Amino acid sequence: MPGYSGSRDQYLTRLRRIEGQVRGVQRMVTEEEYCIDVLTQISAIQSALDSVALGLLQDHMNHCVVDAAKKSDEDGREKIEEATRAIARLVKS
Amino acid sequence: MPGYSGSRDQYLTRLRRIEGQVRGVQRMVTEEEYCIDVLTQISAIQSALDSVALGLLQDHMNHCVVDAAKKSDEDGREKIEEATRAIARLVKS
Amino acid sequence: MPGYSGSRDQYLTRLRRIEGQVRGVQRMVTEEEYCIDVLTQISAIQSALDSVALGLLQDHMNHCVVDAAKKSDEDGREKIEEATRAIARLVKS
Amino acid sequence: MPGYSGSRDQYLTRLRRIEGQVRGVQRMVTEEEYCIDVLTQISAIQSALDSVALGLLQDHMNHCVVDAAKKSDEDGREKIEEATRAIARLVKS
Repeated sequence: MPGYSGSRDQYLTRLRRIEGQVRGVQRMVTEEEYCIDVLTQISAIQSALDSVALGLLQDHMNHCVVDAAKKSDEDGREKIEEATRAIARLVKS
Repeated sequence: MPGYSGSRDQYLTRLRRIEGQVRGVQRMVTEEEYCIDVLTQISAIQSALDSVALGLLQDHMNHCVVDAAKKSDEDGREKIEEATRAIARLVKS
Repeated sequence: MPGYSGSRDQYLTRLRRIEGQVRGVQRMVTEEEYCIDVLTQISAIQSALDSVALGLLQDHMNHCVVDAAKKSDEDGREKIEEATRAIARLVKS
Repeated sequence: MPGYSGSRDQYLTRLRRIEGQVRGVQRMVTEEEYCIDVLTQISAIQSALDSVALGLLQDHMNHCVVDAAKKSDEDGREKIEEATRAIARLVKS
């Protein structure tokens, strides 16, 4: 069971809203709306995705990472290295 | 007519693929897949959105910004200031 | 003469302040200050660098890009493609 | 003693190199080098700072966060919330 299990429904609600925002951008492009307005909407989607990612990461650290660290130092270090690689991908995307 | 008009269908194809990726993340969360795998998918969506945004921005500069600059220096400067604010939002999101 | 030529001294002032911030982080690390405080300072440097980069980019578009576009469509397109690649590096860094 | 204590000298070496890169950008601006080349150097500094920040964060999680989590669930949660806020600042800067 992943760390985000307890808030699964909240994440799904947010992801459905993001799906709606992506469809909104499709509609804007279909109706040939002004480029800068489309870009503003894309930035809003990026912020919403960042916010979901940070929530999942916090849940992951509170559960999987902490559990691993309590099991053994080596398990903890491995999970933390894996989490750091995921954070690096978020920082660069 | 916006600057991206000539490649509108290509942008729509890419945005539909991004919508599919967002639905893929919903499925992963529903099936309680591993947090880090969900985060990897979110980073992939962010990269795909960045790439659409950079394409729209380039089209915008090639058309709206250049046309404004040819009309008058002041029109050019205004459009470039507006584009820079949009770039700032992308850099921070 | 580059596009930022008229505000060269202002950029130098900002870059010297950034150099001072980097030395401040070295001091924090030498004195073994709390990790999170060091990270906060690094984020502040990143924001200051973003802000310098966006200023330079705006100056570049107002001068080099506009001049190239007035010379010929092809020159304009080349400069805009080059600028877009620079923006892509900023977005991902 | 902060989590990065064991690799303090390596961080200082990297921060001194970053200081040198910032001075290099000052030189480029003084000598009025091409805007895009200056932007490329700024992106390189941002990547170097990201990399230092991710290292510090990993050390912080391996020590402060894990120690707090072993002390009590509440201490662990507090440290993880603080780390997540720092990650959010990195993602947006």
